[in-house]
Amino acid sequence: MSNLIITISREFGSGGRLAGEKLAKELGIQFYDKEIIRITAEKSGLSPEFIEDNEERVNNNFLFSVATAAYPDFNYVPQYDVPINEKTFIAQANVIKELAGQGSCVIVGRCADYILRAQEKLLRVFIRSEIADRTRRIAEEYQMEEEAAEKRIARNDKNRANYYRHYTGNDWGSMKNYDLTINTGFCGVDGAVEIIKAALRAKGYIE
Amino acid sequence: MSNLIITISREFGSGGRLAGEKLAKELGIQFYDKEIIRITAEKSGLSPEFIEDNEERVNNNFLFSVATAAYPDFNYVPQYDVPINEKTFIAQANVIKELAGQGSCVIVGRCADYILRAQEKLLRVFIRSEIADRTRRIAEEYQMEEEAAEKRIARNDKNRANYYRHYTGNDWGSMKNYDLTINTGFCGVDGAVEIIKAALRAKGYIE
Repeated sequence: MSNLIITISREFGSGGRLAGEKLAKELGIQFYDKEIIRITAEKSGLSPEFIEDNEERVNNNFLFSVATAAYPDFNYVPQYDVPINEKTFIAQANVIKELAGQGSCVIVGRCADYILRAQEKLLRVFIRSEIADRTRRIAEEYQMEEEAAEKRIARNDKNRANYYRHYTGNDWGSMKNYDLTINTGFCGVDGAVEIIKAALRAKGYIE
Repeated sequence: MSNLIITISREFGSGGRLAGEKLAKELGIQFYDKEIIRITAEKSGLSPEFIEDNEERVNNNFLFSVATAAYPDFNYVPQYDVPINEKTFIAQANVIKELAGQGSCVIVGRCADYILRAQEKLLRVFIRSEIADRTRRIAEEYQMEEEAAEKRIARNDKNRANYYRHYTGNDWGSMKNYDLTINTGFCGVDGAVEIIKAALRAKGYIE
């Protein structure tokens, strides 16, 4: 029996991480977000700070596109001809595949929807909401001015889009990459969890 | 008590119309698709064929952009200075607003999500699926070769995107315009109905 994997991509401040956490708890399955960084660090010898940093700075590198085209499954980790940030992605992709093999889980971000695209039981979700909602949420969560929150949102979303584009070749913000996209401005975080469960039920993945 | 309006935009061949029809039946509310053309014809004196045709051919017209900017609520129908296709859209928009005022309903296509954006109880859904799924569905439904089906899909989606862009200024295929987007390739048409009901329940719009 294949494990059930739910990947959650999310706009910064949309409540997507929280929705994923609640969903995993309700389904009684693992939840992976920052944990992936810790495990990748352990396996690769890289520092967690470096790995986290790497997610925020994408180096557009033609050679890597060639390298990943040659090794699309990330099973081969080249030792010399690939920059360190690209190796980091490959190491993290391998961790994500290992985790998916260990049991049903919810995975947030990190191109998991793309890395696990061959997974038999996979639901790819994108959580978004309007900029005004997100600004309020981030300003409150991080105790910052709304103007600063808006800048942070723009920067984070841009980083996520660049990272996704670089490693998958696809458009992070396009609905075409997801089975379900949800506006938490409509239904809230708890509503998003209910909608995801309805999708899993419709497919026969949960009762 | 405000009426509940569910607008369904859909890629050609995704089963979106069928999902809307089933949803309306299950909720015991009205369903509007081609019916809107008949009513618009009655009210405007234009022929149903002309109105249907108009949905498929968008005339990029700078003057109309100016006209709609001046009359964003479509409440004023200019008599002389607007081309007939633009008048048709305005007549149809007025029909959509009237229908929305008469009772809860599901409305398919026709920029209803945009026309009714000020509606208090509104859920905006987009139904999509992969091109391979849609090709199979259309080839079967219309008894045509897959190659012809694929061409028809490309043409219809392009028409819908142009029409939406022209009259709303927004990108038809962008998740930002919708509260919920669903891939029927994942969950099927019945699954889509269940997911939409979960969203309505989460919001407290239905029991």
